[in-house]
Amino acid sequence: MEGVQQEAQNREAFRQAVTNTLERRLFYIPSFKIYRGVAGLYDYGPPGCAVKSNVLAFWRQHFVLEENMLEVDCPCVTPEVVLKASGHVDKFTDLMVKDEKTGTCYRADHLLKDFCKDKLERDPNLPAEKAAEFKQVLAVLDDLSSEELGAKIKEYDITAPDTKNPLSAPYPFNLMFQTSIGPSGVSPGYMRPETAQGIFVNFKDLYYYNGNKLPFAAAQIGQAFRNEISPRQGLLRVREFTLAEIEHFVDPEDKSHPKFPDVAKLEFLMFPREDQVSGRSARRIHIGEAVAQGIVNNETLGYFIGRVYLFLTQLGIDKDRLRFRQHLANEMAHYAADCWDAEIECSHGWIECVGIADRSAYDLRAHTDKSGVPLVAHEKFTEPREVEKLIIVPVKKELGLAFKGNQRMVVEALEAMGEKEAMEMKATLESKGEAAFHVCTLDKVVTINKDMVSISKEMKKEHQRVFTPSVIEPSFGIGRIIYCLYEHSFNTRPSKDGDEQMHFFSFPPLVAPIKCTVFPLVQNQQYEEVARQIARSLTAYGISYKIDITGTSIGKRYARTDELGVPFAITVDSTSSVTIRERDSKQQIRVNVDEVASVIKEVIDGQSTWGDVLWRYPTHSS
Amino acid sequence: MEGVQQEAQNREAFRQAVTNTLERRLFYIPSFKIYRGVAGLYDYGPPGCAVKSNVLAFWRQHFVLEENMLEVDCPCVTPEVVLKASGHVDKFTDLMVKDEKTGTCYRADHLLKDFCKDKLERDPNLPAEKAAEFKQVLAVLDDLSSEELGAKIKEYDITAPDTKNPLSAPYPFNLMFQTSIGPSGVSPGYMRPETAQGIFVNFKDLYYYNGNKLPFAAAQIGQAFRNEISPRQGLLRVREFTLAEIEHFVDPEDKSHPKFPDVAKLEFLMFPREDQVSGRSARRIHIGEAVAQGIVNNETLGYFIGRVYLFLTQLGIDKDRLRFRQHLANEMAHYAADCWDAEIECSHGWIECVGIADRSAYDLRAHTDKSGVPLVAHEKFTEPREVEKLIIVPVKKELGLAFKGNQRMVVEALEAMGEKEAMEMKATLESKGEAAFHVCTLDKVVTINKDMVSISKEMKKEHQRVFTPSVIEPSFGIGRIIYCLYEHSFNTRPSKDGDEQMHFFSFPPLVAPIKCTVFPLVQNQQYEEVARQIARSLTAYGISYKIDITGTSIGKRYARTDELGVPFAITVDSTSSVTIRERDSKQQIRVNVDEVASVIKEVIDGQSTWGDVLWRYPTHSS
Repeated sequence: MEGVQQEAQNREAFRQAVTNTLERRLFYIPSFKIYRGVAGLYDYGPPGCAVKSNVLAFWRQHFVLEENMLEVDCPCVTPEVVLKASGHVDKFTDLMVKDEKTGTCYRADHLLKDFCKDKLERDPNLPAEKAAEFKQVLAVLDDLSSEELGAKIKEYDITAPDTKNPLSAPYPFNLMFQTSIGPSGVSPGYMRPETAQGIFVNFKDLYYYNGNKLPFAAAQIGQAFRNEISPRQGLLRVREFTLAEIEHFVDPEDKSHPKFPDVAKLEFLMFPREDQVSGRSARRIHIGEAVAQGIVNNETLGYFIGRVYLFLTQLGIDKDRLRFRQHLANEMAHYAADCWDAEIECSHGWIECVGIADRSAYDLRAHTDKSGVPLVAHEKFTEPREVEKLIIVPVKKELGLAFKGNQRMVVEALEAMGEKEAMEMKATLESKGEAAFHVCTLDKVVTINKDMVSISKEMKKEHQRVFTPSVIEPSFGIGRIIYCLYEHSFNTRPSKDGDEQMHFFSFPPLVAPIKCTVFPLVQNQQYEEVARQIARSLTAYGISYKIDITGTSIGKRYARTDELGVPFAITVDSTSSVTIRERDSKQQIRVNVDEVASVIKEVIDGQSTWGDVLWRYPTHSS
Repeated sequence: MEGVQQEAQNREAFRQAVTNTLERRLFYIPSFKIYRGVAGLYDYGPPGCAVKSNVLAFWRQHFVLEENMLEVDCPCVTPEVVLKASGHVDKFTDLMVKDEKTGTCYRADHLLKDFCKDKLERDPNLPAEKAAEFKQVLAVLDDLSSEELGAKIKEYDITAPDTKNPLSAPYPFNLMFQTSIGPSGVSPGYMRPETAQGIFVNFKDLYYYNGNKLPFAAAQIGQAFRNEISPRQGLLRVREFTLAEIEHFVDPEDKSHPKFPDVAKLEFLMFPREDQVSGRSARRIHIGEAVAQGIVNNETLGYFIGRVYLFLTQLGIDKDRLRFRQHLANEMAHYAADCWDAEIECSHGWIECVGIADRSAYDLRAHTDKSGVPLVAHEKFTEPREVEKLIIVPVKKELGLAFKGNQRMVVEALEAMGEKEAMEMKATLESKGEAAFHVCTLDKVVTINKDMVSISKEMKKEHQRVFTPSVIEPSFGIGRIIYCLYEHSFNTRPSKDGDEQMHFFSFPPLVAPIKCTVFPLVQNQQYEEVARQIARSLTAYGISYKIDITGTSIGKRYARTDELGVPFAITVDSTSSVTIRERDSKQQIRVNVDEVASVIKEVIDGQSTWGDVLWRYPTHSS
């Protein structure tokens, strides 16, 4: 227990050091700070904004450009009908309890979780059976129904944390920000909770744009919104965030991927469902084998898992603190074929940063049903094929006599029967003359007799197959990835005189907010002119830089730029050649003034490594 | 009159041709189309999304990187207090009238405008004096108060356009999308109507980040929202749009700009206030002279006007259909020092696409007042200076006796007097013994006698000057710029056989959605392999491309790619060398397979022109 507490304290101290540095150097700023802020809203300050735009540019390069994806950009304001179809209006909720006197709201599961954790951590006299019970509650927390949560809160006599007042029963709170479109107040709308819906509703146009060919992927980067009940975990659970989502549309009968061999040999930490259930740990698996053994459902899903691994590690995520965890059966939506989360370990534990789900045909079907516009794909046969077709013909006259005003609902329900259900009804009608039939839209069971419907199978010639594509969706929480990147890049080393602990971010050049700083060694006009000359050539190469002409000591200026994660510092200490210092190794080389920009360009573009240029230029010892 | 009508018809036909092409090729898509859409919301489809991200990348390069601006990224969800301080909660409104029977809403000024235009255009028997009256109404439309608009609507007997029902009196409708932050319903919030406020509230931190030095600029790219009453003008007036805004903070006593000489020689269409009032047209003026003559208020404003000119014309905006129009006195906010709009002419007329305003200290003062956090800058003096200071000492006892409960308001108003007002009061008190004084917060005039306040001037030693910076704000409507760019780039030419009119967008490579297309001349494996090889090298260079392996005729494939505005087409017609065709000239050169990507790279990066490479490679005639 003590070891656990010590570790928790270390994590907390580490997190404090990281977030202090991040906030002091304006990587992020609590939004509207001068008005005491709003929980769950953060600004990206200048270096944070630069990191974010580097991450997004790399995402575009790595996914959109490399895979020839169709990128779209849809509005955040979304009419209700779209989110009704997707299920968000009815189901995108958290359970909330209210302080019965003050009206303050809390997430019901958070209160129960805090209570159990507190008991386990702080009550030294806790009987073993009680401890086991609390542990069990924590394990099943996410699966508890509203009633079960309410019962536990009552049983444990949990009260409002701020006032100790009694709490209401849990009730669902929709997490979407609601608004109204137009002035009349009759068109409810929401700020989108994800960007995916904008792609689904455009499927028909995008399929046409792609020459009516599958597979293809569409992508979108944009803001999404969740009106969290009580945001915690700082930068990880926020009310507005940037998502980057891919919807890869594929024939459900062929989920192979032509480029799968490119990633098949990659090996990384995976945590299959079976291993989780049987209490094992995540283990290194070849993604090629995972697909071959059926651990991962299909090649396309496997391909994206591999590409996500490459994306995250190239950004600078530590591969030993990255794992792909498969959803347990109870975590997954009923329609999903398979689902894996890229989880990154940070001081808050293992955090879901990318979700990679095979959502089958669910989303396109939902919008087809609601809009009446068929979101389907076609496969033209080279030769027409004989296909057995189910034919259901409701006899409207008979049904009208029997069901009167409900006739239409019964007709529609009969026509909507699947093959299995229809053939069972046919058999029952033939043997018994009548059959019980559940009509969803009436929510009752009616009796159908054999005069009311004819069911048969016929052979038909078909020239094409019409089907709803499956969608495989990698969805990236950009803010979470960036936060984890901050933690994984954060380092501490003693100052030159050993008096102080210096912090620095070892970002790869790809991610670094600024690629280099330029320091005239002393304040004089000649050196400043050289610095400006170098600055002009850096701009011409499109390399971001910062000039620091303060008279501060060179050591302090290095410390400042290290703390921002700037990979290279150029010190102007003569008018002909200057010093380039690399952040992590602190090694220095001497380069001619007119070569500086091209050397920096070479290394940040990845054409050469620092090691390569170290050989080519004389080193410099300070 | 007929000439005017003909021109209107031509414009309409041109606009139809452009928007048909744009919609057919998915440059944009009406949002949520399968649900019959939402007025004023549009998606960027794949080529539109690529154009947008090219425009934004160039904006970052041209402004943020070149000028070392501090880019930030703030949330769209904004608490009420911030927009209360900025004035949006009270004043960001349009006047609306309601159909009294159906409740349908209309913009009051739109109805009056339509009525007057309709009369002028369609009533051949309109008496000259009536025509003059309607023209006068159109001229002053934007200045009419709610009462005046209501009176005109009554006078002209204007009814609801759809039903002919009577209309309500005009009343203000706030254009912000409202929502609620958190679950309790007690924290109202809005979707931001502009990105600027996020920068203003961060002034203190950004100033510190910049080493407590002025001037500096902060920038932000992001979504903004306006809940328009009845959006018209297609892509130009929308409910959600991307803004790119710069807030350049400067000492109000020194608005010079060190880089002004870089733009001073530029000459372009300007439309100063004086010329508009006296009925002249826009004319070509050197920006250097405009600043020297005081037409433009200061160098920094002039510098940004010049930079905006360069930005827009480099994107492909026609310089003859771009003008900088100065705001008339009645258009400008009372606090603004000067304001110029970059207006671009398109089929909808002259459209405001960029606003460049010197907003003085207004915004920072407003947030200082509301938040209590001083948003100020400091200038340290090298030597302490003797400064004459105004000292106002209200005598609270006397004021309390005279004003009782209102004492505090009077005290605060006295202390808030400016130097001029205070010295006038001092003179009046000395000569007459009492003075009339308007107290804003009481909204009445009170009498102050000489025992109630002492006013004097004293010499004081000061070590620094504390002041509120002025802000110069260039604000870019990205969607409007892109739409105008579409119109300015749209061209028509006859097909090869002369049977058809072919459309193409002559985008500069910088803007083009895809940089090149790759066509195997005929469908065979060898050519397709060469095409894939070229594709790989294009990807390695970061060049976006599309492969078209359909068997369609090469002419049709050229037409398709021209319509997307793709500058180069690579036709694979042998395994060693291929043809590169330039879109606008249709000229073709032959280049070795392994050189293709680098030639394309050279031209799209602007290192060479098409003319340069034409000389270097053999031309090809098809």
